[in-house]
Amino acid sequence: MTYVSPSTGQTVRAVLFDVFGTVVDWRSGIAAAVGAFASVHGLDLDPYAFADSWRGQYQPAMQRVRAGARPFVTLDVLHRENLDDALRALGLDPGDFDPVELDGLARAWHFLPPWPDSVAGITAIKRSGYIVGPMSNGNTSLLLDMAKAAGLPWDLILGSDVSRAYKPDPEAYLRPAALLELDPGEVMLAAAHEADLAAARKVGLATAFIARPLEQGPAAAQAAAATQDWDLAGAAITEIAGRL
Amino acid sequence: MTYVSPSTGQTVRAVLFDVFGTVVDWRSGIAAAVGAFASVHGLDLDPYAFADSWRGQYQPAMQRVRAGARPFVTLDVLHRENLDDALRALGLDPGDFDPVELDGLARAWHFLPPWPDSVAGITAIKRSGYIVGPMSNGNTSLLLDMAKAAGLPWDLILGSDVSRAYKPDPEAYLRPAALLELDPGEVMLAAAHEADLAAARKVGLATAFIARPLEQGPAAAQAAAATQDWDLAGAAITEIAGRL
Repeated sequence: MTYVSPSTGQTVRAVLFDVFGTVVDWRSGIAAAVGAFASVHGLDLDPYAFADSWRGQYQPAMQRVRAGARPFVTLDVLHRENLDDALRALGLDPGDFDPVELDGLARAWHFLPPWPDSVAGITAIKRSGYIVGPMSNGNTSLLLDMAKAAGLPWDLILGSDVSRAYKPDPEAYLRPAALLELDPGEVMLAAAHEADLAAARKVGLATAFIARPLEQGPAAAQAAAATQDWDLAGAAITEIAGRL
Repeated sequence: MTYVSPSTGQTVRAVLFDVFGTVVDWRSGIAAAVGAFASVHGLDLDPYAFADSWRGQYQPAMQRVRAGARPFVTLDVLHRENLDDALRALGLDPGDFDPVELDGLARAWHFLPPWPDSVAGITAIKRSGYIVGPMSNGNTSLLLDMAKAAGLPWDLILGSDVSRAYKPDPEAYLRPAALLELDPGEVMLAAAHEADLAAARKVGLATAFIARPLEQGPAAAQAAAATQDWDLAGAAITEIAGRL
C-alpha cells in the first residue's frame, strides 16, 4: 500500500470499482437471462439487442433522479421500470406477462458474470493491503447478491442507496470516502468509463482506467485505450493490481 | 439457509452481529493498549480498571445522541471524548499528553481481538449461505479496520454512521434490513446483551444470544445463560452456527 497518486499527491488507501461494465459483463449476463425468458415465452427477439435496449434506458432513468424530477429510488426499481420500456419498444405489452416472472428477469442484474480477470485482480489488490469495494450505481442488495454469486472479495459494500445519489453526482463519490474516513485523494476509482473517471477526478479522487472494449459487444466501437491521462490505465484489473 | 425463526415465522437470510463484547473482547484489547500507553508515560494505573472506566462512558455518550441533545457524531468521536473523561477521572489532565498519541490510543477500538470462536463461527454461518455482517454502534471505518485486522469475513459492513442511529434506536436495526431489502423477520441479531436483543425483537428481528460471561472480566458477574427465550442461545458463535 505504497502507491501515491500523481494527480492527488496522496497515498491511495482504498480502490473502489465501477461495477457494470468494469467488473462484470452485463451484456452477456443480461442476454443470457433474456434468451431464457424469450425461449420460455416463444418470443422472437435478439437477446443482445434487447440487453442493449434495456441498458439504453439506464442513464435517462437515473438522470430523472439526479435532476430532482423524482425522489431517489433504487436501481432495482429503475431496472424493473426499464424492462417494461424495453418490452414496449418491441411492441410487447408488459401486462401480458406474470409480474413475478418480470421481477425475476430484472433480478438478472444481481447475478452478472465477472470479466475473467476481475476476481483475481480485486483479490490481488486486497492482498496488497488496500480496501476494496464497489463504487457503483447499484443498490446494496444488488451488489451483495452479485458479490456472493461471483466471488468478488469486497471488504465492504456501500451501494448507491447509502449515499442516495447516482454517479456522476459528487455525493456518490464523496459519501463513500467520508464513511471510510479517507480524504477523497486517498480513494481511487477504477472504471471503464471516462466520464465516470472525470467526475471522480473533479471531486478529488485518484483514477484508474480499465479498458473493456467488448462491454457493448464486438460490433460496437469502444475505445480500448484511454483518451485522457488517468493515474493508471490498463487492459485488466490484474494489470492495475501489478502497478499498485 | 433453512432456519426458520420461531418468533418471526420467517426464514433467516442474514445474521448480523453485535460486535463489542459479542465478536471481540474489547476489555482485553483496550487494557493492552492502555497498559502500553501507561508504560510509555510512567503512569501508575490498572489498565483493566481504566478500560472499564472508558467503556463506562459508552452508553451515556450515545444516550445524548439518541435523546437528540446533540447531533449524530461517530463512535470514534465519542470514544475520543470518553478517553479524556477517563483520564480526568484519574486526576490526569488530557492536555498534558500529545493529542496525536491520544488519538492513537482511541484507535485501539479499531483493533480489538476476536473471541476464539468468532472467526470460525462467522465463517461457518457464511458458508451455510447466510449474509453475515456487523450490526454495531461502531462506525464503518472502525468496523472495517477491525475486520481486516481480525480476519472477520463480513459480506458487508454498514456502520452506525450509515443509519446515523445508535442501538437500541429502532432505525439502527431497521435501516440495515431495508438496505438488504429484507423483512426485519429475515434478519437475525446475534448479541451477548439481552437489552440489545430485546430492542431488536421489538422491531421484528430474529434473535440469537451468545453468552460472553468474561466480557466484563472474571470478577464481574455476567449471566452465562439467557434469562429470556431467544430464538437461539449458545456459549459460542460456532455453537449457533451448528444450529442454523
